[in-house]
Amino acid sequence: MATHHLASWAHNLLYSDLPQDVVRAAIKTFYNWAGCAVGGSDHPAATIARSTLTPFFGQPTASLLGTSYSVDAQHAALLNGIASHVHDYDDTHLDTIIHPAGPVASALLAVAQWKGGFSGKEFLLALIVGIEAECKLGLSVWPEHYDVGWHITSTTGSIGAAVAVSKLLGLSIQQTSHAIGIAATQVTGLREMFGAHTKSFHPGRAAQNGLMAAIMAQGGYTSSLQALEAKRGWANVIGATKPDVQANMDKWLGIAQETHGVGLPVGAATGRWEILRNSFKPFPCGIVIHPVIDACSRLHVELEARGLAVGDIQSVHATVHPLVLELTGKAKPRDGLEGKFSFYHGGAIGLLYGKGTPAQYEDAVVQDPEVIATRDRIRGTADSSLAADEARVVLTMNDGEVLQSHVLHAVGSLEVPMGDEALEAKFIDQCSSVLGDGVHAASQACWAIVEAEDVASISKALCTC
Amino acid sequence: MATHHLASWAHNLLYSDLPQDVVRAAIKTFYNWAGCAVGGSDHPAATIARSTLTPFFGQPTASLLGTSYSVDAQHAALLNGIASHVHDYDDTHLDTIIHPAGPVASALLAVAQWKGGFSGKEFLLALIVGIEAECKLGLSVWPEHYDVGWHITSTTGSIGAAVAVSKLLGLSIQQTSHAIGIAATQVTGLREMFGAHTKSFHPGRAAQNGLMAAIMAQGGYTSSLQALEAKRGWANVIGATKPDVQANMDKWLGIAQETHGVGLPVGAATGRWEILRNSFKPFPCGIVIHPVIDACSRLHVELEARGLAVGDIQSVHATVHPLVLELTGKAKPRDGLEGKFSFYHGGAIGLLYGKGTPAQYEDAVVQDPEVIATRDRIRGTADSSLAADEARVVLTMNDGEVLQSHVLHAVGSLEVPMGDEALEAKFIDQCSSVLGDGVHAASQACWAIVEAEDVASISKALCTC
Repeated sequence: MATHHLASWAHNLLYSDLPQDVVRAAIKTFYNWAGCAVGGSDHPAATIARSTLTPFFGQPTASLLGTSYSVDAQHAALLNGIASHVHDYDDTHLDTIIHPAGPVASALLAVAQWKGGFSGKEFLLALIVGIEAECKLGLSVWPEHYDVGWHITSTTGSIGAAVAVSKLLGLSIQQTSHAIGIAATQVTGLREMFGAHTKSFHPGRAAQNGLMAAIMAQGGYTSSLQALEAKRGWANVIGATKPDVQANMDKWLGIAQETHGVGLPVGAATGRWEILRNSFKPFPCGIVIHPVIDACSRLHVELEARGLAVGDIQSVHATVHPLVLELTGKAKPRDGLEGKFSFYHGGAIGLLYGKGTPAQYEDAVVQDPEVIATRDRIRGTADSSLAADEARVVLTMNDGEVLQSHVLHAVGSLEVPMGDEALEAKFIDQCSSVLGDGVHAASQACWAIVEAEDVASISKALCTC
Repeated sequence: MATHHLASWAHNLLYSDLPQDVVRAAIKTFYNWAGCAVGGSDHPAATIARSTLTPFFGQPTASLLGTSYSVDAQHAALLNGIASHVHDYDDTHLDTIIHPAGPVASALLAVAQWKGGFSGKEFLLALIVGIEAECKLGLSVWPEHYDVGWHITSTTGSIGAAVAVSKLLGLSIQQTSHAIGIAATQVTGLREMFGAHTKSFHPGRAAQNGLMAAIMAQGGYTSSLQALEAKRGWANVIGATKPDVQANMDKWLGIAQETHGVGLPVGAATGRWEILRNSFKPFPCGIVIHPVIDACSRLHVELEARGLAVGDIQSVHATVHPLVLELTGKAKPRDGLEGKFSFYHGGAIGLLYGKGTPAQYEDAVVQDPEVIATRDRIRGTADSSLAADEARVVLTMNDGEVLQSHVLHAVGSLEVPMGDEALEAKFIDQCSSVLGDGVHAASQACWAIVEAEDVASISKALCTC
């Protein structure tokens, strides 16, 4: 039932069914993903993957964003997916901590450019369908599936990508069901890989898995038509540690509950849309650090306004949710990657730079004596009465003066989302060194996707060829 | 520890460490795999995969066996892997029901032909290393991992293929560890796909996953160095339903137990070799049916010798292990695929043809009135005192005479393995319609692999180009 239900919903959904805020969320999701894919294109995880896999590249029909390379669509999906995730700077569906765009948008843009002739509206509809599919499936197995050690972005992402590409290419309900099955049987992503190149391989491989599944299903390759719900199908196997996983999946997919506004009402425009719960990171690091960076960035502004220097600070005291110390308590980070797991570093760059962009996570910044000296003056206290996106930071100056900042909801949360201007600043910051003068045209092309006659033109705007 | 231990063992093993019976088992495994890959090359699961993926093929450096096509090595690994498994006729490691050769040999032959210059001995050493790796890992998680719904051939096969290709290409221990990690994070294969094309996709994709992992690791792509044993690594995640899975893996990998003759002693030639426990199927169907086909084939000979016809049989009574009725109790199979899950059909073709080759599983044979009439006279009784590879069949003729056959160990079991002649007859039967006059040269080339200066020549003997 679940497989058929999901395939039917995806097949039947019309662009005219989409509320305007859902379309708007999809544009922002695409925009943020594109900036991340361009911005990550020169990271070693992307460049090593590209160089090692070069002997396998097929006909060049799809662009590697941020580069002058064209490759076959499968490898474009893989490599753009890797680049989009490698800085941990992409979108987050906060209820499941899935990063939805990597698998889905990477697969879709590769197929759209390869085949050609797809409008922005067709693309956005497929993007929304894929993201809803992966996030609903994520909710079905959350949190046990993640807790046991699966990287939920890619384990659900293969299926999301398959559904999205099936939608874009107009596959039948039965073909879409087979595509779901071929994708579901490729369960990619162990959390043990966090911290290594292979972490960003996960959303890339999920994009490729899903693309391949849809193309094979379109040509008649058969799978199970009960891939999600069967006794030895996806939910029961990868959610084996979750009680009642099937009932939970039925709930989230809206089976027999269409009238309750939950799940995926077949072909209807009401119900809960997961894409509205997608968020964008202002800082390329673990999301629990964000409130500290936000609070310290506000204090940076106040220090400047009052003519005070960071060197005048005697001590910094941050009160945070307990998870912050547990997950990001690295007091002496040695390089950029370790800096992403240090709230001390987050606080220091907030105070010193008033922001946290990829530049503040370069090795040289993490090793800078002034940054280290600031970091060493920061102390943290866990307080479980604080929310996860809340922080209080108190500065005591050398002359005894006290400055305070209390962030109730960090920027980038659902309550205080990044606005279009902030997203654009992030895009420009990530892409300008890669795209040069073309960065503004690229930004405009991405913002205007809904009007695009052929989204292949956007791929071209995002590369240097 | 487990990841490093496995990588070290693989890296250090020398051809001179291999006992002669292990080399002999590897030759037979390769020979049987090659015949299956050629024989399955025109099955729709292979031809649909080939045609749908054609737009992605890279430089043609590796042959699709049984065809005139050359493709990039990744797609050769995938497509030869699919073909080798599609008739359910490949090898079986009976302790885990892993089909070891599909993932490992498909990856290795593709790489060997692509890169060129690998001798038969180098190839066999890598084949043995890969098969030991996947079967030991399979034993580590057996049976819970299979019971919950994973297709153990491909979930372990990706890693086996990665280790094998790493060995062939001479990767360092650290590179091999990274390759294990990149492969381990791609957990492919749900049992729900049994009965569909996607079942044979599993070993093919495992071959491709492992090949890709080794190539990426060789170029510096990083993964976890504790991918197998970490808290959120392979064994704990995919073996989450098995108690003490880590201790069990240590046991099977021979960690701290090198002196007990169990596991994988580093660089030594003693210990238990899983490849010696690999078996070959005389019949392309579920292995539990084999004793019935064997017993009925013997009765076919006896009927012929005594001038009796199958039409003279009044009733057939088979006493079998309970699993036979449970797994293969399909009394009215409608086509070849369903015939593979019908011990009634197995009995009928044994009596009528004295054999069970792919020809006896063609749709036309399953639907033949004489076959149906024979099938309908067969009754089965479960008897748990029988072994799984044992069967008793009693024929009652129309004149009241009774003929009996008692198979203690079916042909193809470890006790009564297929001899070289039987394997060769199987190879010729599978390949002659595909390779034509070239079939004998192909057979000779495969048997002589240990003497080959460059195994690329064997790839060429197995295709029609």
